[in-house]
Amino acid sequence: MTQAAPAAPMSEGGLSDVMSALSGQFGDRFAAGEAMREQHGHTLSWIPNEPPSAVVFAESTQEVSEIVKLCASQRVPVIPFGAGSSLEGQLNAPSGGICIDLSRMTKIIEVHADDLDCVVEAGVTRQQLNEHLRDTGLFFPVDPGAESTFGGMAATRASGTNAVRYGTMADNVLNLTAVMANGDIIKTGTRARKTAAGYDLTHLLMGSEGTLGIITELTTRLYGIPESAVVAVCPFETLEGACNTTITAIQLGLGMARIELLDALQVKACNQYSKLDLPELPTLFLEFHGSPAATREQVETLREITEGEGGGPFEWAEREEDRNRLWKARHDVYWASRGLGPGLDAVITDVCVPISRLAECVNETHEDIARSGFVAPLVGHVGDGNFHLLVLVDMKNVKQVNEVEAFVDRLVKRAQHMEGTCTGEHGIGQGKMKHLRAEYGSGIEVMAAIKRSLDPHNILNPGKIFEL
Amino acid sequence: MTQAAPAAPMSEGGLSDVMSALSGQFGDRFAAGEAMREQHGHTLSWIPNEPPSAVVFAESTQEVSEIVKLCASQRVPVIPFGAGSSLEGQLNAPSGGICIDLSRMTKIIEVHADDLDCVVEAGVTRQQLNEHLRDTGLFFPVDPGAESTFGGMAATRASGTNAVRYGTMADNVLNLTAVMANGDIIKTGTRARKTAAGYDLTHLLMGSEGTLGIITELTTRLYGIPESAVVAVCPFETLEGACNTTITAIQLGLGMARIELLDALQVKACNQYSKLDLPELPTLFLEFHGSPAATREQVETLREITEGEGGGPFEWAEREEDRNRLWKARHDVYWASRGLGPGLDAVITDVCVPISRLAECVNETHEDIARSGFVAPLVGHVGDGNFHLLVLVDMKNVKQVNEVEAFVDRLVKRAQHMEGTCTGEHGIGQGKMKHLRAEYGSGIEVMAAIKRSLDPHNILNPGKIFEL
Repeated sequence: MTQAAPAAPMSEGGLSDVMSALSGQFGDRFAAGEAMREQHGHTLSWIPNEPPSAVVFAESTQEVSEIVKLCASQRVPVIPFGAGSSLEGQLNAPSGGICIDLSRMTKIIEVHADDLDCVVEAGVTRQQLNEHLRDTGLFFPVDPGAESTFGGMAATRASGTNAVRYGTMADNVLNLTAVMANGDIIKTGTRARKTAAGYDLTHLLMGSEGTLGIITELTTRLYGIPESAVVAVCPFETLEGACNTTITAIQLGLGMARIELLDALQVKACNQYSKLDLPELPTLFLEFHGSPAATREQVETLREITEGEGGGPFEWAEREEDRNRLWKARHDVYWASRGLGPGLDAVITDVCVPISRLAECVNETHEDIARSGFVAPLVGHVGDGNFHLLVLVDMKNVKQVNEVEAFVDRLVKRAQHMEGTCTGEHGIGQGKMKHLRAEYGSGIEVMAAIKRSLDPHNILNPGKIFEL
Repeated sequence: MTQAAPAAPMSEGGLSDVMSALSGQFGDRFAAGEAMREQHGHTLSWIPNEPPSAVVFAESTQEVSEIVKLCASQRVPVIPFGAGSSLEGQLNAPSGGICIDLSRMTKIIEVHADDLDCVVEAGVTRQQLNEHLRDTGLFFPVDPGAESTFGGMAATRASGTNAVRYGTMADNVLNLTAVMANGDIIKTGTRARKTAAGYDLTHLLMGSEGTLGIITELTTRLYGIPESAVVAVCPFETLEGACNTTITAIQLGLGMARIELLDALQVKACNQYSKLDLPELPTLFLEFHGSPAATREQVETLREITEGEGGGPFEWAEREEDRNRLWKARHDVYWASRGLGPGLDAVITDVCVPISRLAECVNETHEDIARSGFVAPLVGHVGDGNFHLLVLVDMKNVKQVNEVEAFVDRLVKRAQHMEGTCTGEHGIGQGKMKHLRAEYGSGIEVMAAIKRSLDPHNILNPGKIFEL
C-alpha cells in the first residue's frame, strides 16, 4: 500500500488563528467555554472526557465546508457532533481541535411518499422525522436506544430493535452528502433504489465515524406503517430454547419486526423498574407486522415453535397501549439496569456473533460474569446475534474498572473466536481500537491507506478506529 | 485529494517474463491462444472485443495472490473473469495483461443452515449453489438474467427479479475474501449479521468491478424457501396504471418477491417465442411468498388495487408448473426479443429511477424509440424503478450503431435528470464511463483517490469505471 502522508501536528498559533476566525464568523454560534467543551467531548461512554478546543454550531453543508477548509489550512482537527449519544468515545478530541455541532441542521428537506424515501439534514433525529411523518402512514424504522441524529446514526452504522426485519442504517440510506477533508462537498448517489455505478461511497462513509468525511445530509428509505402489529412475550427455561426458537422462526420467514432477548437478571431489573411481573427467566419480546390475519397466523406458528423449545406461557398484546407498555419496559432497560446498583456507574458494551453461537456465547459470558462478581444484565437483538451488557461499576475504584476492561476484552475475544465481531452497533471509537486488527488482519492496512488518501493530514476525527 | 501515482506502463519484456513464469507454473492451466483470449475478452456486450494477453485458470485464493504478485512485480494488468456474462465491457483488456479465470473455483465451502449463510468460492454459480441447497429448504435469491458467478455478481453489484424483496448482492454478502493489488489477501468481515467495526470494505469491493481487488471467496446470506408461492399476471391500459399499482402495493407492505414490468412489445415478443397468449399491453408479472393464507390475502389485495388502476383481467397461478411456465417466459425475454429481428445484434442497457418517475421515464423513452425507428422491447424490475432495453441493431451498420449509442446517452441523461442512476445493475465497465461524472461530480475524485491508494500502479482491471 502507499506510504503514510506524515500527519503534521497543528501549531498552537494555527489553532488560535482558526478560533479567532470562527469566533468572528459565527459569533454566538461559536463557544470555547469549559462547560460547552466538556459537554461535547462527553458522551454516554465511560471513557474519560477529552474535550475539543472549541465548538461551532453549523447550520448548513456550506458552513461545514467553510469550517473544514479553514481547519484544513492550519491542520486543526475537526470532530463532528450530533446528539452526543455514542458509546465508545467517538466524540473525544485527544488532539484538541474544533467540534462541529450539527444538531441545528434539523431540516426535513423532502418527503417522497411514492418513492418511500426522504431527504433530511444530519441533525434531524429519528423521533423528529417520525413525528413529521405521522400523517403520511410512513415511518423510519432504525431505532438505536438513545435519541440520536441521522448523521450520527449513519456515521456509526447504527441499528436497533427493528433490524431483523428492516435492516440497519447500512440498509436504509440511499445516498449521503458529505464534506471531505479538503472541504469538498460530495453526494454519494442518487434517489434510485439501487445502482451499480461506481464505488459505493455511501457505505464507505457509513461507519467511518467522521474519520473520512462529515455527513451533512442523507436520503433514507421509509416504510408503510403496518396494518397491524402484535407484541408477544415468552419466557424460556433455557437460553438455548430462546435462541432455537428465533432460528426456526427466521428460517420459516415469519415476519418478525423485532425479536429481543432479555436474560433473567434483565427481566428482574425490568420488573422492578417498570412494575411488570414477568417470570424471571430468559425471555423473548417479539413484534409481528402485517395484516391482522397474517400477524395472527404468525403468532400462532411462533407459539407452536416455543412449545417444543421449553417456552411459555406465551402472552400477546394486540392493543396499542399494552404493546407500548411492554416496549417502553424494553426501551427503559438502561434505567432499569442502573436501578440494580444505585450510585454506581455503567460500562456498556456490545458484540455480535452468528446466531448459532449466540447461546454458547451468552452462557460463557454469564459464567465469566459470575466468576468476576459483576452485576451485568444482558439484552440482545437475538435475530441478529447481537447483545449488549451493562456492567455496574464504581468508576472511582481503579481496580474494579481494570477488571471490567479485562472482562470486555475477554468478551470481544470470545465473540471473535465464534466468527463474530467486536461490535454489532456501537462502533469502534477509542474503546475498541485494540480489537480491530484481530478482526481484519491486513484489512487494517487497506483501511489506513483509504484514510491517508482521503485525509492526508489526519484532521478528521483523529485518534479513532485505528492508529495511523 | 492525493496526487496520482504515475501508472507506469508495462514493458513488453515484463509481460513476456510474466507469461513464461505463469506458463511454467500453471502448465495447461495457462493459455495464450487466440480463441481462448478472445473468448475471455468477449462478453455479452456489444462493445468491441479487446482480448487479454493470456488467460490463467486459478484454483485457489493463494494462487490468485501469487499471480497478482507476479504481475505486480512487472506492472502487468490483471483482469478477473467469472462467467463472462457482464454487459458493459468489464472484461476487456484495453492495455493487455493477464486474465485470471476463476470459474474453476467452485467449492461450496460451508453451509450454515442455522445462521442462514454459506461460504462459497468466487467461481460458484447461483444455479450450482441452489442445486446444492435443494434438500436444506434454503435458497439464494439474487438472480441476474444470465448464468453468473458469485465473484462476478459481487464485483458488479448485480441484482435481478427478486431484489424488491430480498435485495441485491449489496444486501446479501456478509464478507468477502479478496486479493489486493500487492497480492495481500484480506477478509472484509466476519459471519456476524451486522457489524459497526471499521470501514465497510465489503461494500467498497462490491461494484468495484475488479479495479480495487479480486474477490475469491464470499459469505452470503440464505433464505428459507417460502411455504407457498403464487404468481400473478395482470395487463394494464397504461404504464401509469402498472406503476401506480406497484407503488401502492409496496406502501402497503405486500410481500411481493418479484414485480416485473413488460411493455406491449415485450409481451408480443414473449407471446411469439414462449407460445403465450397474453394481451399485448403493459403487463405486470408478480410473485408472492408466504404462508398459503398470507399469499392468498396478498393476491386479493393486489387484485383490488389493480381494478382502480385500469388493470385486468387478473390471472394467477399457484401450481409450480404454471408458475414456472410464466417465469420461464420472463427469463427468456432475451431470446424472445432477439426473435423480433432475426440476424440482428442486440445492444442491452439499463437505468434506474425513483419509482415515482418510472412511468414518465418509460413514456419519454418510448417516444424516443418511436422517433428513432428502433425495435427495442422493455422489461423492468418495476419495484426498484430499474428497467432494461434490448435495442436490435445491425452492428455492421456504423450509422445505426452511432444512433443507438446516442439513444443510450439520451436515456442515461433522462434517468439522471429524474434523480436516477446511469445503471441499476449492469455496472459501468467501459460502456458507461462517460456518464459517471454527471452522477457523482467531485465524488469521482474521491473514487480515484481510493483507487490510487489501493492500486498505485493501476494494474487491477485498468481502463474501467473512470479514467485515472
